Amino acid sequence: MSLESYMNQIGQQARAASRLLAKASTKQKNMALFAMADALENARPRLISENAKDMENGQAKGLDSALLDRLLLDDARINGMIEGLKQVASLPDPIGEISNMVYLPSGIQRGQMRVPLGVIGIIYESRPNVTIDAASLCLKSGNATILRGGSEAFYSNQAIAEAVKKGVVAAGLPEHAVQVLNTTDREAVGMLISMPEFVDVIVPRGGKGLIERISKDARVPVIKHLDGNCHVYIDEEADLEKAFAIAMNAKTRRYGVCNAMESLLVHAASAEQILPKLVAAYQEKGVELVGCEQSRAISTVIGEASEEDWYTEYLAPKLSIKIVSDMDEAITHINKYGSHHTDAIVSQNYSKTRAFMTEVDSSSVMVNASTSFADGFEYGFGAEIGISTDKIHARGPVGLLGLTSQKYVVLGDGHTRDN
Amino acid sequence: MSLESYMNQIGQQARAASRLLAKASTKQKNMALFAMADALENARPRLISENAKDMENGQAKGLDSALLDRLLLDDARINGMIEGLKQVASLPDPIGEISNMVYLPSGIQRGQMRVPLGVIGIIYESRPNVTIDAASLCLKSGNATILRGGSEAFYSNQAIAEAVKKGVVAAGLPEHAVQVLNTTDREAVGMLISMPEFVDVIVPRGGKGLIERISKDARVPVIKHLDGNCHVYIDEEADLEKAFAIAMNAKTRRYGVCNAMESLLVHAASAEQILPKLVAAYQEKGVELVGCEQSRAISTVIGEASEEDWYTEYLAPKLSIKIVSDMDEAITHINKYGSHHTDAIVSQNYSKTRAFMTEVDSSSVMVNASTSFADGFEYGFGAEIGISTDKIHARGPVGLLGLTSQKYVVLGDGHTRDN
Repeated sequence: MSLESYMNQIGQQARAASRLLAKASTKQKNMALFAMADALENARPRLISENAKDMENGQAKGLDSALLDRLLLDDARINGMIEGLKQVASLPDPIGEISNMVYLPSGIQRGQMRVPLGVIGIIYESRPNVTIDAASLCLKSGNATILRGGSEAFYSNQAIAEAVKKGVVAAGLPEHAVQVLNTTDREAVGMLISMPEFVDVIVPRGGKGLIERISKDARVPVIKHLDGNCHVYIDEEADLEKAFAIAMNAKTRRYGVCNAMESLLVHAASAEQILPKLVAAYQEKGVELVGCEQSRAISTVIGEASEEDWYTEYLAPKLSIKIVSDMDEAITHINKYGSHHTDAIVSQNYSKTRAFMTEVDSSSVMVNASTSFADGFEYGFGAEIGISTDKIHARGPVGLLGLTSQKYVVLGDGHTRDN
Repeated sequence: MSLESYMNQIGQQARAASRLLAKASTKQKNMALFAMADALENARPRLISENAKDMENGQAKGLDSALLDRLLLDDARINGMIEGLKQVASLPDPIGEISNMVYLPSGIQRGQMRVPLGVIGIIYESRPNVTIDAASLCLKSGNATILRGGSEAFYSNQAIAEAVKKGVVAAGLPEHAVQVLNTTDREAVGMLISMPEFVDVIVPRGGKGLIERISKDARVPVIKHLDGNCHVYIDEEADLEKAFAIAMNAKTRRYGVCNAMESLLVHAASAEQILPKLVAAYQEKGVELVGCEQSRAISTVIGEASEEDWYTEYLAPKLSIKIVSDMDEAITHINKYGSHHTDAIVSQNYSKTRAFMTEVDSSSVMVNASTSFADGFEYGFGAEIGISTDKIHARGPVGLLGLTSQKYVVLGDGHTRDN
């Protein structure tokens, strides 16, 4: 079969499965998630042996240790996948909810019913556990899924796919509810993102390069997560203890995450007081510091920041620091250099927090809280498929709701329209 | 200036204006809408004389009378535009609303704030009053607008643009809040739809050809309105009086609208009783009928329907009719041949209406109501910018809310994240 025929078949099967999934009951979907967990449990030896092939190939290809670590499936990670499935089963089912049903002057009632998007294509890189994360969220929200994992995780993903299919079928759901592509041909990605007749939305998970490439070429809407160049602004009226705790937490809780602070903005009136303490604490943690001239006048430890630094998501123990003369300068800086992901203000001034919240154009705006909270779990969604930096459809952490749409439903009793 | 520099300038100006519009107060935006209404009133002679140039050019180019009629600006239409501005001013402002603000286990409060999308590009065909419709809805929802009208309406649109700018500036809003392109170069459209740095969403308004072309080439999200191939399904348990009223209203209220019924599906058990009456009534209205073999056995008036007919949005006094053996066949037919716009069931059976509502994959699903109700005004939105046949972002009639996004806001009091 040609690649094109194969992809067409996958697409048709997904579309057909999506019709059945859309009307599957919550009970059936949860049964499938539990059956998937059982199937993973039973497939444990096979998952580990297939993963070993990927690990071997990866070593032979000379993948670096970080990548190899992400690729590894061991008992703990399999436990994590099984736990994840059970967690998604425990989430409330968003599908079918009817909201805002109101009587209108014509006598009809009009409301909105939450429905699945249909078919979701997920393109991801090395971590094989994404296969389960993504499949479970899509299934719970009544969507069919087409998964395309990285070629390095090929054998692991195929083994996971087998287990997933067993679980889905055991619960009486369509076998094509979750399909993992069995090709590593790069052209398959190009086809997947240009089949609007079969695929309703693409979720790329991976590095910025992957996401930009896919967004550029996609002929299907993309829920994309680009970079997280997050800021904390410490106002002149900040409580400096809170400011210290938040600035430390936002930067040093974890370095490689998208909600980590990459740029610290400090009001000139607070800088003399708080910056030396922060600089010392960052130094202790081994965080490299670069900054504007004013900040360097306060601490000689701070290196020189280039224009490029303000745009940069380091994802590393490195921070850029800028002194600003007022909140407006901070907001302008954030909206210009930031990536519209997550930005925080620390201030005790009511009016300023109110204005900051309104004017900062980011998917999450924090007031007196660490940027680290920008996360589907922390927001109470139970799980997330990513954090959208788009404004269209879903913005910010995307949980089950982001994988749904709302259609209008109208109830009449023989109503017709006059004019 | 080259076209590229011109478009870049327009884009930059729109982006800058959008920042100011996002924080404009409701009062300011409403003042601008009223000032735009005044400016249109004052520009009445100029609007009519500029429109006369377009009409003359149109006649010289041999535009047909329907197109010329849509192009015409007379006193009644100017009144309509002025009335429309005042109506949009009277709508509640969606911007700034914070919803679902809840305390989470970590102690933070998390909610969603409704914000403008940013810059909206509108591409439309001949009717110059769209300039005002679109500009007013975008402005009220805090968005900057770039409008590109049809070349036939060039002089009319420029005259409207002048009045709009006067109103906007009079209210102290940025002069580039609403920009109408002053070029008829087709390449400008291509540029407008591929400037994601300046344009957040494109709304094409016009024929299917225009919309398909733009969707295909856009590098920016598109809120699109493709065709409305709408169905009414008359169940075996329908109240036949209601069914008759709805089937007549859905087809004959207006023929050229997207929410008109184009295909009638009748349960075999109801067909003998209701079809002859409907056929007679349609004939009286001059509606051409084509149908399946079974329907033709009931009425010889019905011509033969081709496979193509089931896919066709006639937008004309023509209807395709199919007899189905049960509701499932109707739903399968609708989901296959329909355009996911608006579809209705007429039935007194509770379980069937419940299933139909869930399983029909359309932007509006009607129960015992005419498809004619699918409309932003009828749904209580006050106005609409179009009807989206997409599932992503906005689905169905798009009012002010469809021109907004929601960002997360988090309130803490020095909160940091532990793990």
